[in-house]
Amino acid sequence: MESLQTDGTEHSTRGAYVTGGEFTRDTNYIEDRVVADVEAARAAPVEASSKIGDPRMAGLTEGALAWPVEPGRYRLVAARACPWAHRSIIIRRLLGLEGVLSLATPGPVHDVRSWTFDLGPDGRDPVLGTERLQEHYFKRFPEYPRGITVPALVDEPSGEVVANNYPQLTFDLSTQWSAYHREGAPDLLPAGLIDDMLPVIERVFTEVNNGVYRAGFAGSQRAYDLSYKRLFKALDWLEERLGGQRYLMGETITEADVRLFTTLLRFDPVYHGHFKCNRNKLTEMPHLWAYARDLFQTPGFGDTADFDQIKRHYYVVHEDINPTQIVPDGPDLENWLSDHGREALGGSPFGDGTAPGPVAAEERPPGANPLYPV
Amino acid sequence: MESLQTDGTEHSTRGAYVTGGEFTRDTNYIEDRVVADVEAARAAPVEASSKIGDPRMAGLTEGALAWPVEPGRYRLVAARACPWAHRSIIIRRLLGLEGVLSLATPGPVHDVRSWTFDLGPDGRDPVLGTERLQEHYFKRFPEYPRGITVPALVDEPSGEVVANNYPQLTFDLSTQWSAYHREGAPDLLPAGLIDDMLPVIERVFTEVNNGVYRAGFAGSQRAYDLSYKRLFKALDWLEERLGGQRYLMGETITEADVRLFTTLLRFDPVYHGHFKCNRNKLTEMPHLWAYARDLFQTPGFGDTADFDQIKRHYYVVHEDINPTQIVPDGPDLENWLSDHGREALGGSPFGDGTAPGPVAAEERPPGANPLYPV
Repeated sequence: MESLQTDGTEHSTRGAYVTGGEFTRDTNYIEDRVVADVEAARAAPVEASSKIGDPRMAGLTEGALAWPVEPGRYRLVAARACPWAHRSIIIRRLLGLEGVLSLATPGPVHDVRSWTFDLGPDGRDPVLGTERLQEHYFKRFPEYPRGITVPALVDEPSGEVVANNYPQLTFDLSTQWSAYHREGAPDLLPAGLIDDMLPVIERVFTEVNNGVYRAGFAGSQRAYDLSYKRLFKALDWLEERLGGQRYLMGETITEADVRLFTTLLRFDPVYHGHFKCNRNKLTEMPHLWAYARDLFQTPGFGDTADFDQIKRHYYVVHEDINPTQIVPDGPDLENWLSDHGREALGGSPFGDGTAPGPVAAEERPPGANPLYPV
Repeated sequence: MESLQTDGTEHSTRGAYVTGGEFTRDTNYIEDRVVADVEAARAAPVEASSKIGDPRMAGLTEGALAWPVEPGRYRLVAARACPWAHRSIIIRRLLGLEGVLSLATPGPVHDVRSWTFDLGPDGRDPVLGTERLQEHYFKRFPEYPRGITVPALVDEPSGEVVANNYPQLTFDLSTQWSAYHREGAPDLLPAGLIDDMLPVIERVFTEVNNGVYRAGFAGSQRAYDLSYKRLFKALDWLEERLGGQRYLMGETITEADVRLFTTLLRFDPVYHGHFKCNRNKLTEMPHLWAYARDLFQTPGFGDTADFDQIKRHYYVVHEDINPTQIVPDGPDLENWLSDHGREALGGSPFGDGTAPGPVAAEERPPGANPLYPV
């Protein structure tokens, strides 16, 4: 849910604000869900909203609507630059939903109003026909007051955004869209692991996914210093945890790995310098770096990455941090392809399932990626 | 000769300017010299000025004056933060000139007018009695039009700056002050190596010492891209050169090593992130990194370093690059003390000379340095 910068001096975004020098993320989203059984969701007890989502959630939060899962009906709008949106691109691919849920990719550099479809022909999304994601938010809520965020699910017939609550959105791709998963799709939310997984996901969210932003958007030296300590404490925990097991929850890839991966991918190219998360590079934490490479080299992960879009997004959009808007040329990316040696820890990436096939030509990320040599 | 930022948007400094997006360093300085034989210097033919200085230079450049070497007469004003000034601190120490040439260290964060003696008691230099280096420039030239730069030699009796031409200044510490060198002082300018050394020093100056600034102060993406390529091409050359020999000129430490060292010391803490020199960290270039550690662990080099002052200087002064003025807490510094293994290449750091003794207590850098655990 990368959002928009509206006030350079405050480091605030419409999806976030700064209080007492500390960056705080606005966690209010459109909490509608696209579900397999609309009636059942409506009938279930009202649920509390959760900043990390809940894969076991049967019902809806206060005021939210249920929309029916339907192949070909929705378009996932997800900028490749944005770590929160990138999760949904990976999970859609791991589950093989490409044929039933189409993908729109706004460019990395949105303007003050909206993410824009500037990568499409004539600057429009070829399916939705629009120039800006904002139009779809306004179709749904003409006075939509919050950030125009990705990922967002757009109902193609009406052009309305129906969901943008990113933590729940990816869980729902696993739980609600299962009738349309590809053969061999992995179980990213194994029932026996969920109770252990949610606290891991929460700690990764608060300390790492959001921790890098807390450091980068800190409004004072003191807020930054505290954020830096907090972030690296969590990275040290992950480094230790991943020294003894191949994936975050053990033997197989789960949603927890996807949520960590999109932050690790951006760590050295962006967060290390731009957000001053510079105790060390990811490449200097041996287990975490080998784990990140293992995932990168697994179909569905690295093959969705676009390092050009990632770098352009942060370095151009955050003018208050990088007023020159010059985008660094480093780091070298070849090392993402080096041997990781993680097979020695055992495990099986997809459990009883299989790897997804190659990325369809039309969905190949256009920018820098060592998997696609120029 | 770190100078002052006067125009944030242009990335210009009084000692530098930007043309066509490319950063250009102003190389006009006060070219007076402090020499062993004033009459001989005056009588010698007029010399051309050189951006890297010339240790064989007998005379003076057009309009410059000669001042006599005299123990206890001059004060070297050199901010620990500044790489150009840091050279003079190291060379003064290697040659053992502490007893005859005193040291004033302005704080890392100068204001728009001048480097200031804010680290001293009551914000004044304890010997000169002044608050700002500018006062000494104005005593000499009341309308001094250029940057108030360090290093500068101040004539204590008159309070006037007599020299600030940093490339010549350190050569002159070797060649003109030899009567006052400590016993065992190394020959940093061995006669048989000078012809080979000057081109190395020049390439290091244009491509590395200044190359990091060219990247960091680039006014356009294109200027930055070119600067980045140029810098790393030179670092690759050094990496290869230092794979086969212990020091830049071979077996012993020379002035060329001092000039490279002060840039390498700042590479990961500052230039990698702040100046976007991020193809890789210094720690990722094995020979260059081992070479830098070898020097760091050699008396006279690392024991003069103050990483707090170094980071504060760049991140606070360059508001146009880092408007938040937040200073990164990284990188970790402990690895500067790790084994470098360079003894295996042979050589002898000080040739027929000896290492300097420990830093005098009153000259110990006050800020972060892994050689001085807190």
